[in-house]
Amino acid sequence: MRIVVALGGNALLRRGEPMTAAAQAANLRTAVGAIAPLIIAGHHVAITHGNGPQIGLLALQNAEADEPYPLDVLGAETDGMIGYLLERELVGSLPPEHMVATVLTQIRVDAADPAFAHPTKPIGPTMDESEARAAAARHGWTIGRDGRGWRRTVPSPRPVDIMSARVIEMLVDLNVTVICAGGGGIPVVEDETGALRGIEAVVDKDFASSLLARMLGADLLMLLTDVDAVYADYGTPAARPLRLIAARDFDPSSLPAGSMRPKIEAAMEFATSTGHAAVIGTLADAGGIVRGEAGTRIVA
Amino acid sequence: MRIVVALGGNALLRRGEPMTAAAQAANLRTAVGAIAPLIIAGHHVAITHGNGPQIGLLALQNAEADEPYPLDVLGAETDGMIGYLLERELVGSLPPEHMVATVLTQIRVDAADPAFAHPTKPIGPTMDESEARAAAARHGWTIGRDGRGWRRTVPSPRPVDIMSARVIEMLVDLNVTVICAGGGGIPVVEDETGALRGIEAVVDKDFASSLLARMLGADLLMLLTDVDAVYADYGTPAARPLRLIAARDFDPSSLPAGSMRPKIEAAMEFATSTGHAAVIGTLADAGGIVRGEAGTRIVA
Repeated sequence: MRIVVALGGNALLRRGEPMTAAAQAANLRTAVGAIAPLIIAGHHVAITHGNGPQIGLLALQNAEADEPYPLDVLGAETDGMIGYLLERELVGSLPPEHMVATVLTQIRVDAADPAFAHPTKPIGPTMDESEARAAAARHGWTIGRDGRGWRRTVPSPRPVDIMSARVIEMLVDLNVTVICAGGGGIPVVEDETGALRGIEAVVDKDFASSLLARMLGADLLMLLTDVDAVYADYGTPAARPLRLIAARDFDPSSLPAGSMRPKIEAAMEFATSTGHAAVIGTLADAGGIVRGEAGTRIVA
Repeated sequence: MRIVVALGGNALLRRGEPMTAAAQAANLRTAVGAIAPLIIAGHHVAITHGNGPQIGLLALQNAEADEPYPLDVLGAETDGMIGYLLERELVGSLPPEHMVATVLTQIRVDAADPAFAHPTKPIGPTMDESEARAAAARHGWTIGRDGRGWRRTVPSPRPVDIMSARVIEMLVDLNVTVICAGGGGIPVVEDETGALRGIEAVVDKDFASSLLARMLGADLLMLLTDVDAVYADYGTPAARPLRLIAARDFDPSSLPAGSMRPKIEAAMEFATSTGHAAVIGTLADAGGIVRGEAGTRIVA
């Protein structure tokens, strides 16, 4: 099968862990332990990943520069860092003849996307409200609540086109495992002359992965996170895992906004437009997900 | 022809310019203006670039972290940033059907390389002596003279193997223009178990480009810099450009150590082992270099 695997933030960093290179490499080693068997079994795999905490850290570190780097450039930096650590661990877990490539991925968004007027994607560290308000005033940031704390928020427009899709597809065809669309891809817009320029945004990696899976003609989209399934009545005593969601019968707006809703929407987009299944589940269950035994399966 | 083009630091930043994303993008646009015609003419091109100022800036920005990111990780970040800006400008200068890919490139070095005991590669900003000594004491850095000032110095071991060479070659074969081996590649060493781990170093991008050109079977290696040729008696009234250097008759140790000597050594390695020419010259002369009309040609 041709599989697009989207790694959630927990593949890189567990809650409360310091964001050191060593901690991220160790977590990625675990993630790779779950994915490598799929590749060894013969599946053609493209792997994507998020970058919220990492891009937030870089943005903080260079906020005091006279002219701080914009988010597209910082996103590209995180793709370099995370892609390298992931590729290094992956190469170490695969037979020496198997090829792996990390491909930087520009992703086109629409400059008129309403998301630019409503920054909702949280990045960087969690602060208390007064700290967040001070940072917002100092750096011109938008901030918003995230769980019990406050974080910087940035626009998260929908992806429209993946500029490197043909290269990624050629490599996947050749059975190169490709790490791409890191952090949802590097956001660019087309100007009036048709030239690309960067834009300050962070694309949701699940929507980017869904678009990538459609452009690659993938047979399966796996959205991996830190819960083993989508739950009905999540967080209540009546919580129960959903094993199958039929997109035609499901209204994602019935779910609270948050990290699961965009995942389900991204999965539904893929299932509806391809007729193939998308699965939401946990990294440790990657093998079971491919066999149809774990996670929540989203079908058309 | 199959050509490896190594971009010098001046393709990214001119002397004294502030290291903003906008300045680097504008300079890269000029660089791309010189290289795009080669690609449009049908040559298969791989492009490499340096990262000395950029990795130095990132190292400074994260020097105060509890556990600063090591140089291999920071190098990967610069590859993401520079690769993205270069790819974006390149895509804008080529026909829409032409493919470009930026491939992160791990480069294996020898942990026993004597360079680890003698850090000589300057990175980051130029400081005065007292500033440099204070920074060295604070961060545990090695420092050294560079021109009239002082800079942090890091080990620069010789590259031994390019881990992504097969992927890069497949892409070049398919006439994808590949941006790779940024900053000389991301340095890794093999441990006793055969696994790769990162190591704190910055590989010279001209040596990395020479190795890449040999591994790709390139017909021409172009080392582009801010002077139009290698000069005999450089910096004296008797200075004159050398049009042709025969490696068998030339002793590079006759040159002062510095940026031109490693370029000539890298060019000689390529010419001697392949029988093809390497040319050292300026970016603006890229077209003339391919036609054999500009630069200093180094042959076996």
